[in-house]
Amino acid sequence: MTIDWVGLDADDTLWHSEGVFQDTQAWFCDVLEPFCDPDANLVARLDAVERRNIPLLGYGVKAFTLSMVEAAVEVTAGRVPATVLAELVERGKQMLQHPVDLLDGVADVVRELAGRYQLAVITKGDLVHQEHKLQRSGLLEHVQVVEIVNEKDEATYRHILGRNRIPVERFVMVGNALRSDVLPVLAIGGRAVHIPYALTWAHEHVDHPGDVATLATIRDLPDWLRSQV
Amino acid sequence: MTIDWVGLDADDTLWHSEGVFQDTQAWFCDVLEPFCDPDANLVARLDAVERRNIPLLGYGVKAFTLSMVEAAVEVTAGRVPATVLAELVERGKQMLQHPVDLLDGVADVVRELAGRYQLAVITKGDLVHQEHKLQRSGLLEHVQVVEIVNEKDEATYRHILGRNRIPVERFVMVGNALRSDVLPVLAIGGRAVHIPYALTWAHEHVDHPGDVATLATIRDLPDWLRSQV
Repeated sequence: MTIDWVGLDADDTLWHSEGVFQDTQAWFCDVLEPFCDPDANLVARLDAVERRNIPLLGYGVKAFTLSMVEAAVEVTAGRVPATVLAELVERGKQMLQHPVDLLDGVADVVRELAGRYQLAVITKGDLVHQEHKLQRSGLLEHVQVVEIVNEKDEATYRHILGRNRIPVERFVMVGNALRSDVLPVLAIGGRAVHIPYALTWAHEHVDHPGDVATLATIRDLPDWLRSQV
Repeated sequence: MTIDWVGLDADDTLWHSEGVFQDTQAWFCDVLEPFCDPDANLVARLDAVERRNIPLLGYGVKAFTLSMVEAAVEVTAGRVPATVLAELVERGKQMLQHPVDLLDGVADVVRELAGRYQLAVITKGDLVHQEHKLQRSGLLEHVQVVEIVNEKDEATYRHILGRNRIPVERFVMVGNALRSDVLPVLAIGGRAVHIPYALTWAHEHVDHPGDVATLATIRDLPDWLRSQV
């Protein structure tokens, strides 16, 4: 069936995101190292705190920043100075102000698609941060629907499609995360396109199911959409 | 014109919220006092940090918790121990797990209204926290639309009504905050009912415009709605 609606993930599909987190993780290790045992595995410890906080804090920079503060006190057994913790909060605030850096091809492709399809940006994370990024992205004028949600699972997609009157058989979701962008959409009868990003957050990793449409770059998306009948 | 849709604010309209923040502010002052000058005006300092962070961090408990950490380092000139800052983060996490305490009459009134109107919960704050509170409130089964937004201004209400196909002349918004629940809805041609709460967050304070429908308790809402033709 013809595709009328294209759903687009945002972080690491429209703009770079994971790199900012990984840069901050590396910086966190440098800053905390002087207060830790030499064999403290700082990346793993921070990651563990982040994961255990997801059910309560959700996704996004504010959750990540609170986890950095918590992990810093934990890994240093309270030896970290308060001023260093204030630096962590400041760094989180810088992440929120980081320029929106579109992936190669995004501006052209979104403009091109907007002439032929209805576009929906469907992203998880922090409400205020994702709204700010969208506003600064220059893409908002081409987009009919924006949905910022807490988790992208089957129930969420059903709800989003329902409330925007989007027939699932005329919908395709495009994103870099198999777990959030591809598998739940296939499970409810929609189509999905995987565009892998160079970096994958460990939390989003799932085994590749094999038969998923996969593109090397968003530049290949218009042709792929034309091929769908 | 007949009312078909009733919009309900959540924090301090459906359940108690501001009290949890004010309790935490008082606790913050107790905890920080030993590390401060006796004339440090801790409440005002925390409030100032919170306000200056709203444009970047938005509303809600995670933003408030980051502001507590920032303010604690600032007011103590870095003398606060890291373990106390970890306590602030822990306290924020407790706030997120605080039981949902419905205001008197809410459970009855929402059940009653659900038989006669479409209900929309329209709230700002933290996505994950508001979703959790709604899930735990027992009210979700009566509600057709949930909108968690970053700011409740005229543009937001227009957008929410538009995307849910709610005619503004058949919509009434009910809430405790004149600034967020009443004035913007009146400005776009809707109706609004003010139900003041015992505590008002300073940030939400505006002068009362005088001619706004005001109820003492949500228990009076069904009669007021019946009186509207």
